[in-house]
Amino acid sequence: MIELYHAEPASNSLKVLLCLKEKGIDFRSHVVDIQAFQQHEPQFLQINPDGQVPVLVHDGVVVTESTVINEYRDHVFPEPPLRPADPRACARMRLFTKYVDEHLRHALSQISWQLMIHTITDKLTPEEFAARLARIPREEKREKWRISAAQGYTPEQLAASRRTLQESIGKMEAALSRGPWLAGETHSLADIACFSMTILKPKRYGDFMNDEMSPRVMEWQARMMSRPAVQAALATPGQVRTRAAS
Amino acid sequence: MIELYHAEPASNSLKVLLCLKEKGIDFRSHVVDIQAFQQHEPQFLQINPDGQVPVLVHDGVVVTESTVINEYRDHVFPEPPLRPADPRACARMRLFTKYVDEHLRHALSQISWQLMIHTITDKLTPEEFAARLARIPREEKREKWRISAAQGYTPEQLAASRRTLQESIGKMEAALSRGPWLAGETHSLADIACFSMTILKPKRYGDFMNDEMSPRVMEWQARMMSRPAVQAALATPGQVRTRAAS
Repeated sequence: MIELYHAEPASNSLKVLLCLKEKGIDFRSHVVDIQAFQQHEPQFLQINPDGQVPVLVHDGVVVTESTVINEYRDHVFPEPPLRPADPRACARMRLFTKYVDEHLRHALSQISWQLMIHTITDKLTPEEFAARLARIPREEKREKWRISAAQGYTPEQLAASRRTLQESIGKMEAALSRGPWLAGETHSLADIACFSMTILKPKRYGDFMNDEMSPRVMEWQARMMSRPAVQAALATPGQVRTRAAS
Repeated sequence: MIELYHAEPASNSLKVLLCLKEKGIDFRSHVVDIQAFQQHEPQFLQINPDGQVPVLVHDGVVVTESTVINEYRDHVFPEPPLRPADPRACARMRLFTKYVDEHLRHALSQISWQLMIHTITDKLTPEEFAARLARIPREEKREKWRISAAQGYTPEQLAASRRTLQESIGKMEAALSRGPWLAGETHSLADIACFSMTILKPKRYGDFMNDEMSPRVMEWQARMMSRPAVQAALATPGQVRTRAAS
């Protein structure tokens, strides 16, 4: 029995949904409404004290962190494999998943929060917002929410995030010049991680994501979009509280 | 043929040295003097464009990032295994290695740089220091060096780093109440990562690392210290430029 607590099919939630769909694993979906701060409610903190989605529950075992969840799933359900058998390709895969977690994810998160924080906070009184903030378990996260709601990030911080995104597209373009997939000859968790973060980004970042400057990334994104698992993952309902999915 | 570019046996360099010693793998050691900024010299940037140690070179294949290097080594040289065969224990291992990379390492790095930056920069003129800074490939790293050399971190930033260290000791203590090693029944890359970061820390952080508040962590550190591989790794020369080691 597999249960998945997740938000809408984007970013880290898309990453774990994609892995489940590629493997054809049935699961029970629990949608957590992060815009309503459900991930910090006591009921959810009992499942993940870090107050973050996604969370996988497999026969009572709770696994957190999207990258760890995807490695766990490939360990338990090895077919079709999403980690290259070749050690060198597997190391390339992990360099990408790590880069996404430590650099790309934060850059995109900063830009997204800046754009959407007021659609969340405008519904709340300052006291309500303060009460919500106080429930966030991790100090860095509390600080991120507080800063983005209060003064917003500086133009320098946002420009640095944009440069990180541009750097990541450069890394992907270089990798795709060496093989059809980011880690080499086979589709892997690297493609899943990078795609989940950069999907739809050509619309907003067309100055460096386009057919001239990043032709391989554009072709790879189209190839990813045509995969049935990707289409199924993107169609996962993200607005209801609990429902079965497969 | 295995070559390792590393700094003194501490932190991320100790992490990869420990893994090599546990597996009894012979290697050629290249010591990179990070206090002299050798990791940003053009010669080293040809090996790792990110300008960071450690770097493993195995039959011409370059692998960077200590966590990725250790997973790669366990893939290529599986005996003795340093990744648990049980998927749940393996996920616990990766949660620790990821936590070290994303939280603990940065907290300790901030505190250490604050303490040691002036022993490095005082030997240089402002122009020399600016020239060294300009060679650092990653913008965040350049900014970290610039801030720690200029105004230093704020008391609030340093207090937050200290709380992260205290939180990490709490996580380790909780894990060790469930089994003899951080991931459970077997010694793993989780123990190697956490030990490499927290060795010697009881001397400086005795207010929360002591036999009363973290008895299991203290006992585990002593048990780690008694391992022949740990003693061999700690004895690795770190002050000469190039020498053979095994």
